[in-house]
Amino acid sequence: MLKNIAIIGASGVVGKEVIHCLDQLNFPTDKDHLMLFSSPRSAGEKVETPFGEMTYTAFDLASAQESDIIFLCVDGDFAKEYAHKLTEKGATVIDQSSAFRYDESVPLVVPEINVESIGDSKLIANPNCTTAILVMALYPLYKKFGLEKVIISTYQATSGGGLAAMNELEAETKNYLAGEKVSCDKFAHPIPFNLIPQIDTFQENGYTKEEMKVTWETQKIFGEPDLRLSCTAVRIPTFRAHAESVTIETTQPITPASAREALSNISGLEVVDDQEKLKYPMPITCTHKFDVEVGRIRQNLVFGKNGLDFFVCGDQLLRGAALNAVKIAEKLV
Amino acid sequence: MLKNIAIIGASGVVGKEVIHCLDQLNFPTDKDHLMLFSSPRSAGEKVETPFGEMTYTAFDLASAQESDIIFLCVDGDFAKEYAHKLTEKGATVIDQSSAFRYDESVPLVVPEINVESIGDSKLIANPNCTTAILVMALYPLYKKFGLEKVIISTYQATSGGGLAAMNELEAETKNYLAGEKVSCDKFAHPIPFNLIPQIDTFQENGYTKEEMKVTWETQKIFGEPDLRLSCTAVRIPTFRAHAESVTIETTQPITPASAREALSNISGLEVVDDQEKLKYPMPITCTHKFDVEVGRIRQNLVFGKNGLDFFVCGDQLLRGAALNAVKIAEKLV
Repeated sequence: MLKNIAIIGASGVVGKEVIHCLDQLNFPTDKDHLMLFSSPRSAGEKVETPFGEMTYTAFDLASAQESDIIFLCVDGDFAKEYAHKLTEKGATVIDQSSAFRYDESVPLVVPEINVESIGDSKLIANPNCTTAILVMALYPLYKKFGLEKVIISTYQATSGGGLAAMNELEAETKNYLAGEKVSCDKFAHPIPFNLIPQIDTFQENGYTKEEMKVTWETQKIFGEPDLRLSCTAVRIPTFRAHAESVTIETTQPITPASAREALSNISGLEVVDDQEKLKYPMPITCTHKFDVEVGRIRQNLVFGKNGLDFFVCGDQLLRGAALNAVKIAEKLV
Repeated sequence: MLKNIAIIGASGVVGKEVIHCLDQLNFPTDKDHLMLFSSPRSAGEKVETPFGEMTYTAFDLASAQESDIIFLCVDGDFAKEYAHKLTEKGATVIDQSSAFRYDESVPLVVPEINVESIGDSKLIANPNCTTAILVMALYPLYKKFGLEKVIISTYQATSGGGLAAMNELEAETKNYLAGEKVSCDKFAHPIPFNLIPQIDTFQENGYTKEEMKVTWETQKIFGEPDLRLSCTAVRIPTFRAHAESVTIETTQPITPASAREALSNISGLEVVDDQEKLKYPMPITCTHKFDVEVGRIRQNLVFGKNGLDFFVCGDQLLRGAALNAVKIAEKLV
């Protein structure tokens, strides 16, 4: 049976990817069952979608409430105001923002990992992009070997800041190469040929909120509130795939071979790790790809027989946002 | 007294920075005491230097041997063939390549750290760029708190691959932005808006040689052959400053405040760590700068009271190569 779907924030970069994923995953809906809500600015605009030409509509609570599933692809303030109201007539809301991720009554879901946590909740939080990409590789290792310590450094794309941030990378890189003045608006510093070791605001403990999201959300998704995990989150001048360098200490001894075995045949994950062919996870191979890539798997020199290093990369807008949400929706139908 | 200086590989990107550093540090030499040796291809070319217009000369062993100090800014094969011969008439050779770094009879020197290891050696090895930048911040912490574990992920600039690699980043980024085909020559994969988690060749243990250099060289410079240190080395699309995300477990308890104190007033190092003003180490602030920047100093969540996270960035061609070598030379005169 076809489902009534609403995408709120449909003209944004994540909203557009949700439409794309609904099509690619053959989700049971069609043009007549799909509502695309946008900001008043884009309302009335026509847009080509895989479901045919459609028109953005200004957000309207009563209409949206009639849906079966609502993808909320907007900021946390909007989500806080409307998420619960949107569920009042029975719709299930999948929220991309961080508004409810740390609310104990709201499940935080990566469908390949903890779909059972949904229960009968009508509001479901989608994880932070860096977390969603990380846990695709971390969870199988956690299940098989146990985790004592996790240390992560990220290489995050500009898409995390939305379309305007991606456009800023492109426009300002052109300025740089033309020898013109490089400025910044979406970023605190110029991004072309630079990196910025700060994403989101600083917390009291010196970590940024982005870094703490990875700690808090991984703990919640795994159901391990004491898991020791630290992250350094760094923006680099790439467009839309996040990469992460990960070092773990496991409870049980681990080897690269046993790790590879644990990471093989996992839905949503591809082992890309061939030294001879120089294959490893990279933004250019992960962009527009559904699977997260994991590679550079090796015994870690510091933690010895209980230590492993690996490198993951995934499309920030897909596994890190839209794909994860649509895969949650698949579990609901 | 003015010193006779030879720069072998003077037309290369590191050789040019050596000339610049000799001038900036007011090294006791002048145009008449300086020989610029290049490849036969560049020999005869005139070049503007801070010492006046000079001419590149094709390498000639006998002439070079007459120097007091020789900067060897060439590849390892050339160094292996000529380094010892160049010392035969009393010159001291400072080698930028990795040819002798792991030779027990050759000191590996960061002058602010282990200048005493030079002794009466006539051949001195300059460390790998990533190591030289790292140890500027790591050494003061090691001295004050002791080190149990060091885990590093790098963000390395294209300058590590020489001028051709920097040119490839610029040219191929232009191609990308013009919608044209992007290719690669100096790198195994296209570098524009990408990252490559491999620098140098793979070793049997799954680490790359670049990664193992950081382990081996830090152990040698600190005189701690059992120091547990692991590195993940990643090339990113920046021009000439390397950054590194570092997590350490110390022997003694450490706090961000005590770490900041240990890192303050260290020659060659600047603490850049102001959350309110959004100041932290970045390639755009470190490029062409002599000091290495350290920031993002915080108590690490995984190692607790004995754990610290920090982020360093330094000019790969300066502290990572030319500046370190000229500072070694300063200690010799």
